[in-house]
Amino acid sequence: MARKRSLDEGPVLRERIMGQASALFQERGYAATSIRDIAEAAGISSSTMYHYFQNKQEVLYAIITKFMADFLAATVPVLQDRTRPPTARIREIVRVHLEMSDDRRPELLIGNPIRYALSPDQRREGIHLQKAYHDAVRDVIAEGCATGEFQVDDAGMATMAVLDMLNGVREWFRRSGPLSRDEVVHHYTTFVCKILRA
Amino acid sequence: MARKRSLDEGPVLRERIMGQASALFQERGYAATSIRDIAEAAGISSSTMYHYFQNKQEVLYAIITKFMADFLAATVPVLQDRTRPPTARIREIVRVHLEMSDDRRPELLIGNPIRYALSPDQRREGIHLQKAYHDAVRDVIAEGCATGEFQVDDAGMATMAVLDMLNGVREWFRRSGPLSRDEVVHHYTTFVCKILRA
Repeated sequence: MARKRSLDEGPVLRERIMGQASALFQERGYAATSIRDIAEAAGISSSTMYHYFQNKQEVLYAIITKFMADFLAATVPVLQDRTRPPTARIREIVRVHLEMSDDRRPELLIGNPIRYALSPDQRREGIHLQKAYHDAVRDVIAEGCATGEFQVDDAGMATMAVLDMLNGVREWFRRSGPLSRDEVVHHYTTFVCKILRA
Repeated sequence: MARKRSLDEGPVLRERIMGQASALFQERGYAATSIRDIAEAAGISSSTMYHYFQNKQEVLYAIITKFMADFLAATVPVLQDRTRPPTARIREIVRVHLEMSDDRRPELLIGNPIRYALSPDQRREGIHLQKAYHDAVRDVIAEGCATGEFQVDDAGMATMAVLDMLNGVREWFRRSGPLSRDEVVHHYTTFVCKILRA
């Protein structure tokens, strides 16, 4: 069952371990998953596992930072594209935010007490990455206020409201539910535009 | 230190235990708090403690249902008061929701993995209470759409967006922060009205 893999698979194997780990964390919870369970699910020996990750916390941290790096790569260039009006950028961000949160659901470790599981340094880095996204959204909102497309009294507060609203979706949206993902994206795009518009 | 108390204090002592428990759960986390820690903080013996609660899970469940019962008592009559226009009711609900979430912060067990700690039956009851609030909000939104004060395509979806936005506040709002609670209430009232209005 635990098929051994050679070390030269490198980054591919690393991602494979992370994928199996996030699936297990979501299924069983972080606390109930051992580093051995992860190695077994990835089809590698414990010693190969330790070549990539010293402990479970490192795997968790790698999953979170990988997701956030990919999320920033998908969103920040859109947010900072000054060739497009703020409204167009915000509309696209609502879609990307909701679709990526749904596509990569296991990596978001929904409902898991991840904050407690990370070290203080790791937590700080996680917050730093979230803040980069928050700030880029806030900057577009402020830009839209300057052009007159948007009108909010406090761009920072509007950013919190919009992001909390978008982050809430992953807690209740199910693909098997009554509304398609596109319908949800459509409704939330309208809500966000209503909050921001003049 | 652990001053004994007589059993005839009844409900007062029960609430005292719940208050100490929610403070400990928030400080140390649910998993790291023992029933003995709770008894000690409440100044009672373990045997008195067991007279009120069989185990830690029962204390947690009592805290959650007490909060939700009080929350429903403070919100549902406002939401169902058909003598006032839907906009006035929604505005008041934003304030009550935000103030009560802040006043009773320890009982909300922010960041604690409470879902996993409850039994399936207890979780169902918790969801049932949340749904009662959700449904009352949705009904006012639908009523406002019927009167023409509001205009949203899907009252259920607008309810999720509004409640996720309001629930997000307790995660970042600090009384020591740059904005007063009244300012936050003011901004969020505006956001909610913008989402809903025609």
